[in-house]
Amino acid sequence: MLLDAPSVERLLAAFRRLPGVGKRSAERLTLHLLSAPEEEALALSHAIQDARRRVTMCSSCRNLTEQDPCPVCSNEKRDRATLCVVEQPAGAMAIERGGAYRGLYHVLHGVISPLDGIGPDELAVDKLVGRVERGGIDEVIIATNATVEGENTALYLSRRLAPLNVSVTRIAHGVPMGSGLEFADDVTLSHALEGRTKL
Amino acid sequence: MLLDAPSVERLLAAFRRLPGVGKRSAERLTLHLLSAPEEEALALSHAIQDARRRVTMCSSCRNLTEQDPCPVCSNEKRDRATLCVVEQPAGAMAIERGGAYRGLYHVLHGVISPLDGIGPDELAVDKLVGRVERGGIDEVIIATNATVEGENTALYLSRRLAPLNVSVTRIAHGVPMGSGLEFADDVTLSHALEGRTKL
Repeated sequence: MLLDAPSVERLLAAFRRLPGVGKRSAERLTLHLLSAPEEEALALSHAIQDARRRVTMCSSCRNLTEQDPCPVCSNEKRDRATLCVVEQPAGAMAIERGGAYRGLYHVLHGVISPLDGIGPDELAVDKLVGRVERGGIDEVIIATNATVEGENTALYLSRRLAPLNVSVTRIAHGVPMGSGLEFADDVTLSHALEGRTKL
Repeated sequence: MLLDAPSVERLLAAFRRLPGVGKRSAERLTLHLLSAPEEEALALSHAIQDARRRVTMCSSCRNLTEQDPCPVCSNEKRDRATLCVVEQPAGAMAIERGGAYRGLYHVLHGVISPLDGIGPDELAVDKLVGRVERGGIDEVIIATNATVEGENTALYLSRRLAPLNVSVTRIAHGVPMGSGLEFADDVTLSHALEGRTKL
């Protein structure tokens, strides 16, 4: 069978490692790339190499970017007194898409997870602390995910930043807008109750 | 924004051309490949080029294969008197997976579609006719899809093969096994009624 051929198996395996791509999707993608015109298949291969060559980390905020510093860090209209700390570039992208945030970012590229051997050094936390120490920052908003690791990382960062003259805040977690109580899970509901604010 | 950078836009566009990959999936895949370890991203790029280089068309059945003739055509245990004509390699793969079919295949790599400029020449129908003319084939099972183009292609092939001393059959279309009448669409139901057989 075609799918047992060594070069095809390697392509299948490479697709399976992508997020959200299961066995059947990997097979469909592989067959498509083998049947498609050669230019189309090679366009994807070359685009991957080209993007990897051109995209680097912003030396200031560690977000992924083609130019250094990144467009957000080099935009004079952004509020330079506010930093939003996110786990991944996708988080910064989601907040940018919302359009409400005008400050700068800091991307950790992960969360503290001792079992996976990821500690403050792997996340370059010193770089964030150094940025705050250099001054000019009033508030650090910690927007790590609402997972055990995300919460632990938020706690760790708040302790590291506590000695510095900066306000450290955490984004709100609760019932999503436009959704009903009956769709929220128990942990979200208890967070929503604990985090209640005065009307 | 990162997604507006030229190299990233090209990678997004290459992913969007894949079947079943929408805007959000393309963004997720792109961000993953940019954040992943370099070896992982390049492994996919190289696997695409490598598979394209090694996989060719079987000179006998036109299925995709790493060796020519393909494993099915070169398997002495297969029934060489039966040919199953499919639109795409994925169709042959689905039938192989079923395990019930012991004959050989013929892959068209498309269907007759005058609006897209695809006629018998593009599908190399002469190659199929030549294969039957050389003799030794008792039955040609036409397993093109149950679409307008698939049905037209089946009709065209049956006319082309009619003068040759071969039985031309079409796979059955009807209510899927394990499914109820209430889930079948009208066209499938009318096909299922027309194609009724004696018990």
